[in-house]
Amino acid sequence: MFEAAEIGRTLAKEEFKKLEPKIHHQVLQLQQRLRKSDKSLVIIISGVEGAGKGEVVDRLNRWLDIRDVQTHAYWEETDEESQRPKFWRFWRDIPMRGTVAVMFGSWYTKPLIDAAFDRLNEAEFDQALTRNRELERTLTDGGAIILKLWFHLPKDEQKNRLESEAKVSKFKKSPLLEEFSKKYDTFVKVSEHALQFTDTGDTPWHIIEATDPRYRDAAVGRALVKCLERSLGSEPDQVDPAPAEPSSIELVQLNDAELTILDAVDLSLTLTEKEYTQRLLSLQAELHDLSWQLHKAKRNAVLLFEGWDAGGKGSAIRRLTQAIDARLYRVIPVAAPTDEEKGRHYLWRFWRHVPRAGYITIYDRSWYGRVLVERVEGFARREEWLRSYQEINEFEDQLVDHGVVLCKFWLHISEDEQLRRFKEREIEPRKQHKITDEDWRNREKWDDYKLAVNDMVAHTSLDQTPWTLVSGNDKLNARIQILETVCGALRNALGLPPL
Amino acid sequence: MFEAAEIGRTLAKEEFKKLEPKIHHQVLQLQQRLRKSDKSLVIIISGVEGAGKGEVVDRLNRWLDIRDVQTHAYWEETDEESQRPKFWRFWRDIPMRGTVAVMFGSWYTKPLIDAAFDRLNEAEFDQALTRNRELERTLTDGGAIILKLWFHLPKDEQKNRLESEAKVSKFKKSPLLEEFSKKYDTFVKVSEHALQFTDTGDTPWHIIEATDPRYRDAAVGRALVKCLERSLGSEPDQVDPAPAEPSSIELVQLNDAELTILDAVDLSLTLTEKEYTQRLLSLQAELHDLSWQLHKAKRNAVLLFEGWDAGGKGSAIRRLTQAIDARLYRVIPVAAPTDEEKGRHYLWRFWRHVPRAGYITIYDRSWYGRVLVERVEGFARREEWLRSYQEINEFEDQLVDHGVVLCKFWLHISEDEQLRRFKEREIEPRKQHKITDEDWRNREKWDDYKLAVNDMVAHTSLDQTPWTLVSGNDKLNARIQILETVCGALRNALGLPPL
Repeated sequence: MFEAAEIGRTLAKEEFKKLEPKIHHQVLQLQQRLRKSDKSLVIIISGVEGAGKGEVVDRLNRWLDIRDVQTHAYWEETDEESQRPKFWRFWRDIPMRGTVAVMFGSWYTKPLIDAAFDRLNEAEFDQALTRNRELERTLTDGGAIILKLWFHLPKDEQKNRLESEAKVSKFKKSPLLEEFSKKYDTFVKVSEHALQFTDTGDTPWHIIEATDPRYRDAAVGRALVKCLERSLGSEPDQVDPAPAEPSSIELVQLNDAELTILDAVDLSLTLTEKEYTQRLLSLQAELHDLSWQLHKAKRNAVLLFEGWDAGGKGSAIRRLTQAIDARLYRVIPVAAPTDEEKGRHYLWRFWRHVPRAGYITIYDRSWYGRVLVERVEGFARREEWLRSYQEINEFEDQLVDHGVVLCKFWLHISEDEQLRRFKEREIEPRKQHKITDEDWRNREKWDDYKLAVNDMVAHTSLDQTPWTLVSGNDKLNARIQILETVCGALRNALGLPPL
Repeated sequence: MFEAAEIGRTLAKEEFKKLEPKIHHQVLQLQQRLRKSDKSLVIIISGVEGAGKGEVVDRLNRWLDIRDVQTHAYWEETDEESQRPKFWRFWRDIPMRGTVAVMFGSWYTKPLIDAAFDRLNEAEFDQALTRNRELERTLTDGGAIILKLWFHLPKDEQKNRLESEAKVSKFKKSPLLEEFSKKYDTFVKVSEHALQFTDTGDTPWHIIEATDPRYRDAAVGRALVKCLERSLGSEPDQVDPAPAEPSSIELVQLNDAELTILDAVDLSLTLTEKEYTQRLLSLQAELHDLSWQLHKAKRNAVLLFEGWDAGGKGSAIRRLTQAIDARLYRVIPVAAPTDEEKGRHYLWRFWRHVPRAGYITIYDRSWYGRVLVERVEGFARREEWLRSYQEINEFEDQLVDHGVVLCKFWLHISEDEQLRRFKEREIEPRKQHKITDEDWRNREKWDDYKLAVNDMVAHTSLDQTPWTLVSGNDKLNARIQILETVCGALRNALGLPPL
């Protein structure tokens, strides 16, 4: 999830200077409309320590007309608060219609800290998060708009900030930074779970890469403007026409040309034929052995493949199936649904092929079509694909909870490499059947797909169910990366040491 | 919750004979419309053992055109099933659009049994129920209609059925009856929690009193017809015009004159002046002492009063406050909301008065206005008051989890007694201010209020947060019943033995 907020987004000083007054103006206009509406706005400021949450609060107070804004910091509970049920402190601060509450800390703070410090077990943590979800549902049903912002810093950056006083304003340094820095990994893990669990269609999370303060603040501004526009209905005089609708747990995009998670994939990796052949043979032998061990251990595995057209899915899958006994796996090519499938929930066609103990299912394209092609082509409505992130996470959670080994691959290639392969396919008679007009049409939507992939990874690449973004410009490299990942996952599941 | 399904509803043989063909006809018509729609129907059959669930399944298969109906019984998991994630068996049985699945047992069966037999702790149970809620949301978002039926039997009746072979058809006797009969109380307790937790606006539970098979089956028919009508949109040619919209966790009403939970209150109870005075003084002394002990123990209490106009709330509250030190309690009379209150969520005005440790808040009328006056007068829309049951349960859960002692009273009187009191108020100069035109108007809606109270108790009278229905025709009796209940709850909270 957070890898999509670790790709080094920045905003140049002069760009920020141009953008900031526009955001300020838009925020004020929208606040004016909020005032006249029957809605209230709750902005939740959370995230890793050291990300500059205090500075964001300052910025919001500069942008908003503060006559109708209350900022609440949830620090240690007072006597008054601890003597009452734990949501009392939040209920007392619920803003009136037309007004805004900025919450520095929130109903997430205590459960997150308790989970990170092992004071809550997994089920108790879920129970607390369920209550948060219910509270948010209650409030939004009652007319509140809830904007949930999460500020992320990579581990090194947090460490830097801890070490170098210079990088953060002296007065704004979080007193908890040192303590949390030691627990970074734990904190990120529980946070990921919390965000995924509470990322609903009505109250989505916005993950903001906070390394560059200018980017961070501009992203806050954009998220705020988008959220209010969506909730209040948009007006014609927008400064900046919106690009393709960004989704909920998102790296808030400042414009179309923004970096996405795919830009973080190093496409320059290559292997020589010799290296390839050597490693292929040894990995395939390994996979053959591991798949039989998996069978004996009565474990099951699901491998799924998504990627650009001509990304090399088919040939990569063949390198896997060559190595596995034909009795042990099935490949499910996902094309147009059958009548049987069309008549049911979109997940049904995937549920039915979940392997039994000891077997492997390979999905060639998958349930992610919902948030890729169906989103980009408009086959699914916004609310449909938006809620499917959670549906998909719940589905995969059940697989993993049951002990299924799950590997998810996105085969990434560059736009140029795709063009090269398309042309090759047109020329080569044996490959002509593989290129259609549809492929060319899809190619025109490259940027939309990039955004969709970015959101998909941000929403669904979780600790237990990570995506592997495959560096695929060199097919040989791609195949080896996939074989290595699958073998690694199987070894891990079987309790064997990594190779 | 289940007390509303233990009041002895029956249906005479000749009435059933008249009704049954009508239901059959309506069901077939609605099924025809379902067939042409893009929806599917899932009927979940659950409830206590011995309630005749198998007979209900037979009945449904007689009413429905079985060409489009599949019945699934979820018994022991097969190998095929246990080797896959636990929802796999349900997903494989999801009906196609236009068709029906009758599920005998469901995703509730295993969590309920595991919780009853202590194989799940409280948080794990909630986790399992959260997953059920998510599954149901996923399915309904995808176009499924889910009708959840719960069949209830009182403890004695279940025991009777166990003991007397004659009462149940020989071949249909549940093999689990004996085992579950021993765990009746535990099973009812975990069931209550499960039903409350998963009773959402989209997928409500229908609790059906199952002692009389004719009433039971007619209630199933009515629930099915109502559910399909609501989901498919109703058509003009209804056999039987619907009475006031019944709500979700409901005792399915067959007609307006049906018994409600209030009919189970014995209004004939009286006390002599002498008995009253004696017990009043001793209970007030007790309450005085207990309220100080509560203060010292840093516990808090919430007492709330609802009831018919002229039901005697005010005078009963005075008998309490006479006994408690004025520093320790506050009475919050709930009338029209202030501007501050109107501008926020309807629960805010009640949250703000939650007492701190050591103190008592008495609410004279309460958050239940939402499901009483606001429902009956149409101030809240159906979906608003319907979802507020869950909002209220969550609110009260938090009170109780925090250790707040909560007592909820409905002051019940008969329609005749109300008339007598109204007339008395009109004559008596000191009481004339207490009677208004509004009271007379409310009185005309007596039956609507009865239904609303019934639903309120069915939804919100839970193990930890029970309602006390006060027998109030005799004011003296009412006051003593209330004092006894409050003293009992305080003693219990303080760890003292019952008086």
